[in-house]
Amino acid sequence: MIDSLAQFEALLQDLPDADEGARAAASARNDVLTKPPGALGRLEDLALWYASWRGEAAPRVRSPQVIVFAGNHGVTAQGISAFPPEVTVQMVANFEAGGAAINQLAAEAGATMTVVPLDLDTPTADFSAGPAMTEAEVCAALTAGWQAVDAGADLLVVGEMGIGNTTVAATLAAALLGGAGVDWAGRGTGLDDAGVAHKASVIDRALAANPSRAPLEVLRCLGGRELAAMVGAMARARQLRIPLILDGFICSAAALVLHRTNPSALAHAVAGHLSAEGAHGRMLEALDLAPLLSLDLRLGEGSGAALAIQIVKAALACHSGMATFAEAGVSDQDG
Amino acid sequence: MIDSLAQFEALLQDLPDADEGARAAASARNDVLTKPPGALGRLEDLALWYASWRGEAAPRVRSPQVIVFAGNHGVTAQGISAFPPEVTVQMVANFEAGGAAINQLAAEAGATMTVVPLDLDTPTADFSAGPAMTEAEVCAALTAGWQAVDAGADLLVVGEMGIGNTTVAATLAAALLGGAGVDWAGRGTGLDDAGVAHKASVIDRALAANPSRAPLEVLRCLGGRELAAMVGAMARARQLRIPLILDGFICSAAALVLHRTNPSALAHAVAGHLSAEGAHGRMLEALDLAPLLSLDLRLGEGSGAALAIQIVKAALACHSGMATFAEAGVSDQDG
Repeated sequence: MIDSLAQFEALLQDLPDADEGARAAASARNDVLTKPPGALGRLEDLALWYASWRGEAAPRVRSPQVIVFAGNHGVTAQGISAFPPEVTVQMVANFEAGGAAINQLAAEAGATMTVVPLDLDTPTADFSAGPAMTEAEVCAALTAGWQAVDAGADLLVVGEMGIGNTTVAATLAAALLGGAGVDWAGRGTGLDDAGVAHKASVIDRALAANPSRAPLEVLRCLGGRELAAMVGAMARARQLRIPLILDGFICSAAALVLHRTNPSALAHAVAGHLSAEGAHGRMLEALDLAPLLSLDLRLGEGSGAALAIQIVKAALACHSGMATFAEAGVSDQDG
Repeated sequence: MIDSLAQFEALLQDLPDADEGARAAASARNDVLTKPPGALGRLEDLALWYASWRGEAAPRVRSPQVIVFAGNHGVTAQGISAFPPEVTVQMVANFEAGGAAINQLAAEAGATMTVVPLDLDTPTADFSAGPAMTEAEVCAALTAGWQAVDAGADLLVVGEMGIGNTTVAATLAAALLGGAGVDWAGRGTGLDDAGVAHKASVIDRALAANPSRAPLEVLRCLGGRELAAMVGAMARARQLRIPLILDGFICSAAALVLHRTNPSALAHAVAGHLSAEGAHGRMLEALDLAPLLSLDLRLGEGSGAALAIQIVKAALACHSGMATFAEAGVSDQDG
């Protein structure tokens, strides 16, 4: 239960680290697998990273979890989305019935899926005029995220749904990384040029109406419930040493809140993909993460990260399933 | 049974096409799935491509096949690999015992795996002095590839193992696309700078010793058995309308032989990944294909393409499993 932002901030300064012994053991194993050194490229890096967080030299990914948080946003009153806000509730029903893209992608990856709607009939306040949430509201969302993580999961994806939330994510990024609305506003689910220009102007008003740039205050004033829940879930995963795959534009904006609070808070995370939402690449640069996939996705829901689960699983299948040179009777490079 | 290169060339000029009706039906379905238009990016393109080759509006990938062809190369006498040629036989045993990277990746992708060793105790002739194969030898390898394809497969990956075969692939590329050894020689399984320079000089000698630039003659004179078998399997997949995922440097060199014989011969193919072997990107440009993955792999065996099976499967899982706006009761963009 997160009662205050001060409590959450203190928690973020006291996070567990990876197991360097397990990383060294995994690295030693990697050196003797039946392949030329380094030939599996980033799969080898993923295996060592994952092993270090799970504290095992040769782990497997067996129980990935995808959580989709949904929230509604008062700023949709400003006409910043191509879709009406009722779609958030409708898509939650679609998630629960198994009909959305993320349902298919989670199933393909062998992941469980948890859907967490957050007070959908009470949108946040319109942040173009003042703070989106009270401290009690943002703490409730952080707690919902914290509690949604299955302690038995061994890999986590946090996704989202919320009409208007590319505007929220762009505003968060502008507040945390600098720049104006024009630098961060993108097409979202399908705005035209005039729509993007209007979105940028709404972001500029929001930045002016909410002057604090302290990361957790930025989350309260310029975030939304599903973004706060993602922050809570990502922090909980770190506390449980569950490796995390970041999704696209919205998820990365939420991740920035953690990163600006404690630059090492995302050591348990990799970037699942590069979104087609234009400014996502700059968010990943700020997070110092290189995406695993770049397939022009811009759906959210955790879709790109869920696809990347299969890359991480494959990396560990190779690392933990391959024979060594000695086991296979294969001559190594020294002949 | 491929009896002559003239027969194979004629076959490549008479290939079946995709089903444009199925593509149109798949495209119509894609337009009404519960997501913003285009939000699944390249997954949408993959779904339409796959549907067109399978002749169904909403297919799934159920029976992928990975074939690994292995061959030995007389040019290893020139000292162009970091590993000794015995490793080819040893790795075939590793494939058969399930210990190699490709075994793990095929299993993760739900693919069957077929291992085809090609006369491993009779390496091809050293092509730095003259043709690698006789017409009978190259036709036998083409036939082995042709026959290895399971007619019941619904997605194909062709991989390879053969100590020395990055030299073979680089030589093929130079002969088919132009340039000298220095333009195409890379580190392979781990050469140092001097090793790469020597490899380039061996390629230059091979190009001089084998002057024909007719694509199938290039395959005979400057190829190898596993590359010829890959060519045969890729052509057979096209004849059976089985979609194909290309692997890295070696596979793409084999693909160039088909592409230079008939520029539309690879319409059933996508590029699985961009290899870390330096010149691979230029091969993909010549094939006019953009890779699905770029994870610094340089292993061969079909590894990058096998990883990409999961991307194609996920694309079809979304395309064929998602609800439509009408089915889910979700408002579309027009509200």
